[in-house]
Amino acid sequence: MTLQKVIITESINRQLVKTLEQINYTKLAVLVDENTLKHCYPILESELPEHAIIQIKSGEEFKTLATCNHVWKELTALAFDHKGLLINIGGGVIGDLGGFSARAFKRGIQFLNIPTTLLAQVDASIGGKLGVDFNGLKNHIGLFSEPDQVLIDPIFLKTLPVEELRSGFAEVIKHNLISDATNWKKLLKVSLDSMNWMNVIDHSVKVKESVVASDPLEDGPRIILNFGHTIGHALETYCMTSGKKILHGEAVAAGMIMESLVSYRKGLIGKLQLAEIESYIDSVFQRVSINENEISDIASFAIQDKKNKGNTIYAALLEDIGSALWDVELTSEDIVQSIRYYTNYT
Amino acid sequence: MTLQKVIITESINRQLVKTLEQINYTKLAVLVDENTLKHCYPILESELPEHAIIQIKSGEEFKTLATCNHVWKELTALAFDHKGLLINIGGGVIGDLGGFSARAFKRGIQFLNIPTTLLAQVDASIGGKLGVDFNGLKNHIGLFSEPDQVLIDPIFLKTLPVEELRSGFAEVIKHNLISDATNWKKLLKVSLDSMNWMNVIDHSVKVKESVVASDPLEDGPRIILNFGHTIGHALETYCMTSGKKILHGEAVAAGMIMESLVSYRKGLIGKLQLAEIESYIDSVFQRVSINENEISDIASFAIQDKKNKGNTIYAALLEDIGSALWDVELTSEDIVQSIRYYTNYT
Repeated sequence: MTLQKVIITESINRQLVKTLEQINYTKLAVLVDENTLKHCYPILESELPEHAIIQIKSGEEFKTLATCNHVWKELTALAFDHKGLLINIGGGVIGDLGGFSARAFKRGIQFLNIPTTLLAQVDASIGGKLGVDFNGLKNHIGLFSEPDQVLIDPIFLKTLPVEELRSGFAEVIKHNLISDATNWKKLLKVSLDSMNWMNVIDHSVKVKESVVASDPLEDGPRIILNFGHTIGHALETYCMTSGKKILHGEAVAAGMIMESLVSYRKGLIGKLQLAEIESYIDSVFQRVSINENEISDIASFAIQDKKNKGNTIYAALLEDIGSALWDVELTSEDIVQSIRYYTNYT
Repeated sequence: MTLQKVIITESINRQLVKTLEQINYTKLAVLVDENTLKHCYPILESELPEHAIIQIKSGEEFKTLATCNHVWKELTALAFDHKGLLINIGGGVIGDLGGFSARAFKRGIQFLNIPTTLLAQVDASIGGKLGVDFNGLKNHIGLFSEPDQVLIDPIFLKTLPVEELRSGFAEVIKHNLISDATNWKKLLKVSLDSMNWMNVIDHSVKVKESVVASDPLEDGPRIILNFGHTIGHALETYCMTSGKKILHGEAVAAGMIMESLVSYRKGLIGKLQLAEIESYIDSVFQRVSINENEISDIASFAIQDKKNKGNTIYAALLEDIGSALWDVELTSEDIVQSIRYYTNYT
């Protein structure tokens, strides 16, 4: 049986029926959290054959081996064999944790992802990264393995708070900036509430798929997907450790402005391009407020990033709108300057 | 870099140097238990470049996620990245647990297996089954993934108690019975203490590799490797739960006699063949003493085996010396009769 790996549809129910007919499975369970049980599962329930529900708690803080243990106990109690099928219904945490739990149970059972957040639809569910956090380290334990199929329907976006939609949209912006100048121009003309989500998702999934296909194990070109994430992730970690609330996409949006500034300073992009990027991101996201005395702390998180080699910071930068480089060396001064620029403390 | 998957050598040190030259790695650690640290690691130490030692406790009872957690913490403290290399030095537990820990750390680091027991050399280290026990269920959490290389040297067999050597030899007997009548005839003529271990291991590894290659995920033909294990494993589980000491190979040796009897009763092999199998196994292993009132308990463990589909017991049986069938249905009466026959309560 070879299934199409990613299906983007506006009739998820009909598609799910078709997919389940194509898979040879012995038992069926869905993995949900309290949010997706309430808002997303009801959309699918009527078309699901006999199945069990496995529920976990929502949130990154439950993306742990302890939660995997819970899933494994449930699968054991349900007497799942290796032809069992788990359907992950939710955002990135459900997909990553559910996928890892599936692939490690009895050396691997089948699983489908039905991503229900924009972030998971355009990013987390594509590329085969599965796993959980470990002692506070993100995605420290995990695997590379593609779901048997990813089923995406924009209908689930209606169940999302607007800030979650916006957060996911940061990855859409990134996909355009690193790989598609033509589509970027189109994006500039549409506001968030008048997006054609089928098109947006389709485009983003294709970008991510093609980058991942060129480098599945992240030894080289795939690293361009990290654009905006070197400083963005440092900002996100800083906020988390200091108790400030920030969504992943909000940090990435800020990171993309900062790393575009670094790209400009290194002579890779022009002043007009920088201005265009800034102005578009500002039209979608509010600037994150950062005090001057926080800048060096944020920069120090970038130095500790696990993607660095030794003490050198490597980032993906733009060499043009629609084209990115990877493994560009940054100094911590580059980072401090870029944060300063972003916050206007210049 | 493509490494030869399995190397059988009488100069492990020279080979290890060569292997390490071929691998591009950033950090090196060896995984040992208190036994292999004392008896096996010293054989290798002089040729190992700078490395860390990660030690776990020996024994199946430590083949758990808690032990993986310990390994993962050590790898984290050593700042292993995905180009790090772990060398597992030990028996089946070290290889299975170390391999799973390696492949799940940061979505996969490199690992080598240096199996030091006969059981691990001819069986556990070949075939890519990695994992740990979970809530008392054997190998319940794990993966299929081949080590980057397996390095086998019979020198380590000298570090083994004779009953451990004998236990591993049960799998050698099995490999001959299920696939090679000619080699079986040769085996009959040699006693355990005059074996040419290089030849024995080479033959067994080839048998296992070829069976695994025909069916890596164990959907069909690979199941013949289960010969002797359906009833043997039930006996092993029964002994473990009732506090009787039995080694895996001792249980498998008994299981092979019992399952040969079933093969005979089903008309698959003749009386002379059964006698030849029994007499050879008896020349190596003492019979396990089983009381009449234990027989039904042992049979009931066979019914619960996770390899069954629903309530039917499936076993691999011999259809000749040197050839096996898989997915043969057994009744619980077949099992009771075979244990009775083995114990002579007939």
